[in-house]
Amino acid sequence: MAVLEERPVRLEFFPITGVPEIPSGCALGAVLLQCLEQAAVDLGPQDIVAVAQKVVSKAEGRVVRLAEIEPSKRALGIAGETGKDARMVEVILRESRRIVRRRGDIVISETHHGFICANAGVDRSNVDGGEAVTLLPLDPDRSARRLAEELGCGIIITDTFGRAWREGLLDTTIGLAGVPPFVDFRGTTDRYGYPLQASILAAVDGLAAAAGLVMGKTEQIPAVVIRGFTWTRGDSSAQALLRPTHKDLFL
Amino acid sequence: MAVLEERPVRLEFFPITGVPEIPSGCALGAVLLQCLEQAAVDLGPQDIVAVAQKVVSKAEGRVVRLAEIEPSKRALGIAGETGKDARMVEVILRESRRIVRRRGDIVISETHHGFICANAGVDRSNVDGGEAVTLLPLDPDRSARRLAEELGCGIIITDTFGRAWREGLLDTTIGLAGVPPFVDFRGTTDRYGYPLQASILAAVDGLAAAAGLVMGKTEQIPAVVIRGFTWTRGDSSAQALLRPTHKDLFL
Repeated sequence: MAVLEERPVRLEFFPITGVPEIPSGCALGAVLLQCLEQAAVDLGPQDIVAVAQKVVSKAEGRVVRLAEIEPSKRALGIAGETGKDARMVEVILRESRRIVRRRGDIVISETHHGFICANAGVDRSNVDGGEAVTLLPLDPDRSARRLAEELGCGIIITDTFGRAWREGLLDTTIGLAGVPPFVDFRGTTDRYGYPLQASILAAVDGLAAAAGLVMGKTEQIPAVVIRGFTWTRGDSSAQALLRPTHKDLFL
Repeated sequence: MAVLEERPVRLEFFPITGVPEIPSGCALGAVLLQCLEQAAVDLGPQDIVAVAQKVVSKAEGRVVRLAEIEPSKRALGIAGETGKDARMVEVILRESRRIVRRRGDIVISETHHGFICANAGVDRSNVDGGEAVTLLPLDPDRSARRLAEELGCGIIITDTFGRAWREGLLDTTIGLAGVPPFVDFRGTTDRYGYPLQASILAAVDGLAAAAGLVMGKTEQIPAVVIRGFTWTRGDSSAQALLRPTHKDLFL
């Protein structure tokens, strides 16, 4: 695990503006670079760009038209119990390793990547052409690595997830390139020499959560520049943020 | 619930530097104002200051010397099973409404305020005089309101909490004054006119999480200024962020 020793002196988040509608097969990196150029923003190697899953999924063609979905018997059963569209349920089941919890119209599942989230990340909003849904990228870390190469900075791909115990959603890391996922204060001591306990912060999730506040859902801001966070480039993966099921006390 | 319509154009986080050790009974607001003055930072009414629980607890005298604690039978039993200091376990039990989960040396409890966290927020680090622990403030919203009056800005009191399903901790809101807890995108539609689903963000938790990255655990940065977030002052409470137990699928 990478140890980050410098804390930021000033951490800034600002939107990448002017991003057009992203069609399937779109060169998302090139589009973002063009928007940055138009805004006269030069990315440095310590900059990080948080990119909303929705545009990554669209660029990668991870869009399904509901008219093309034939719901299974299981999907029809869950649809009857939840009041959800059976085709939507079918897509959720296909995107899930397993259903983790279900109550009322809420379906929490574990995706094939291991993310615990509502509806397996399948989302109806912001997709054109009527009744379509976006799916999470097949390999969000790979998507992040590609964007990191194209933009020359760190990349966090975010999605908006619910949480246990607390109301309200937070943008959360689903794909990662370059930036280490954690800030590790273990091994350091406080000013009295006590070793610090419980001091591994999920740094990229903290960055993602604040970046999500800058992404206007209604205003076409799918990407946010994060500046001022000091990090050392390495192989990194959003998978490191997933607690193995057998270690989790709430699964 | 307050609806925030403006997204930040540039969201900034910077530390309040030069904060000395905070003794019991210390006028924390006055100390922070002095540090801000020395750094030539003028707070505006739209600014928010995130303050680490630890210094609030110390200022309020929420510190217990372990030598003064007589562990109960129950605490001795849990101490034997977990390997924890029985006096520490006793303090955790006193600070808890109930133990939510326990495995190995991990104790997750629900505090009297309703927070779900490790060790009921009782923490050994950064307390002087040997074997002492800090407790969470009795009423963190009240602590926040007092600081908000003294500093003339919004206040988020943060603590570093673990999460279900994901590794790494995030700073999280435990006390709140002025700033609405949520950003609500319900009722708005995307560019195709679809109503946005699942769009209530826990704004202050997003701000707290990023502020936590600027609070250097080892470098005496217990407070961070958050600038650029647009909000409308109101009565607010960190309690609004707590999902009622009967609605939670993971308790």
